[in-house]
Amino acid sequence: MNNGPINNYPFTLKVPEGDDRERHVCGDCGWINYINPKIVAGAVITHGDKFLICRRAIEPRVGYWTIPAGYLEAGEAPDEGAMREAEEEANAKIEIDALLAMYSIKRISQIHMMYRARLLDPNVSAGEESLEVAMVTWDEIPWQDLAFPTITWAFNHYREVVDQISFQPFTNPADSDLAVR
Amino acid sequence: MNNGPINNYPFTLKVPEGDDRERHVCGDCGWINYINPKIVAGAVITHGDKFLICRRAIEPRVGYWTIPAGYLEAGEAPDEGAMREAEEEANAKIEIDALLAMYSIKRISQIHMMYRARLLDPNVSAGEESLEVAMVTWDEIPWQDLAFPTITWAFNHYREVVDQISFQPFTNPADSDLAVR
Repeated sequence: MNNGPINNYPFTLKVPEGDDRERHVCGDCGWINYINPKIVAGAVITHGDKFLICRRAIEPRVGYWTIPAGYLEAGEAPDEGAMREAEEEANAKIEIDALLAMYSIKRISQIHMMYRARLLDPNVSAGEESLEVAMVTWDEIPWQDLAFPTITWAFNHYREVVDQISFQPFTNPADSDLAVR
Repeated sequence: MNNGPINNYPFTLKVPEGDDRERHVCGDCGWINYINPKIVAGAVITHGDKFLICRRAIEPRVGYWTIPAGYLEAGEAPDEGAMREAEEEANAKIEIDALLAMYSIKRISQIHMMYRARLLDPNVSAGEESLEVAMVTWDEIPWQDLAFPTITWAFNHYREVVDQISFQPFTNPADSDLAVR
């Protein structure tokens, strides 16, 4: 994580005036290092009956399979972030269809926004952060080798609304003990 | 904004290895100050035919009307953030019903998640960040004195789905020139 206070810098943990919780405050200039959740944007991407998956070339979970997803950048909308990640990780051009799910991984302060998207061009290939990419049917999804719980959740939630246009985005599965809300 | 680099600290702007854009990197320890969008969580809160509004006691837009909303805290889910803000700004206990909208204010890197919620107890009162609170009908909403465009959008989008249970969250209005996506 890159959110912690910096060694040797004059931050102290205190409650700023008008606030109700401790923050890292700079003793020199009063700057407050607010730490807020980060957004991860990704997409379940299909072409016909196949799903786009990528094998991770970077930590964490090198070698495991994922869907294109990553940290939202400053000045970016979540759907734009999902499109950028598809391009970066799989050279995939996609069209976003719906907001499939919004998961909260509170332990690490991440909000995962997962979209439903269609692949516009079946030619995909591994980007720098992927070892390889593949188009697989539902039965070929490597369930035991998926990188993160939210990837499993997103696939399963995708299937629940596969024929629906209008639905509320899913949140964390109630029965999950992997990332309690 | 509290996201900038810190005066006199040894940050330089450069592209870290494996990255594709400039970041503020510490010359001493290599720590990278990633700047990511912040989430604002809020809710359109109703009781019968009335809407809960708060007059802001803090900058920006002191004296203008808003719905309870504020920055999501570390370790918090967005719906929890919306509930906390309702409590802090209006001493309001609410029940969240649906994700009404997700707006992107790219210019200031904010993602606004607006929920639809019901007030569980009609007794509300101004919290520290509010000058006063009020329960108003649709026709009494002070449209000209709302604090932010997203508040106006949220009210209008609320009305579009008032009788719907299952719908996709709204995004920025296409015809808005106030916060272009």
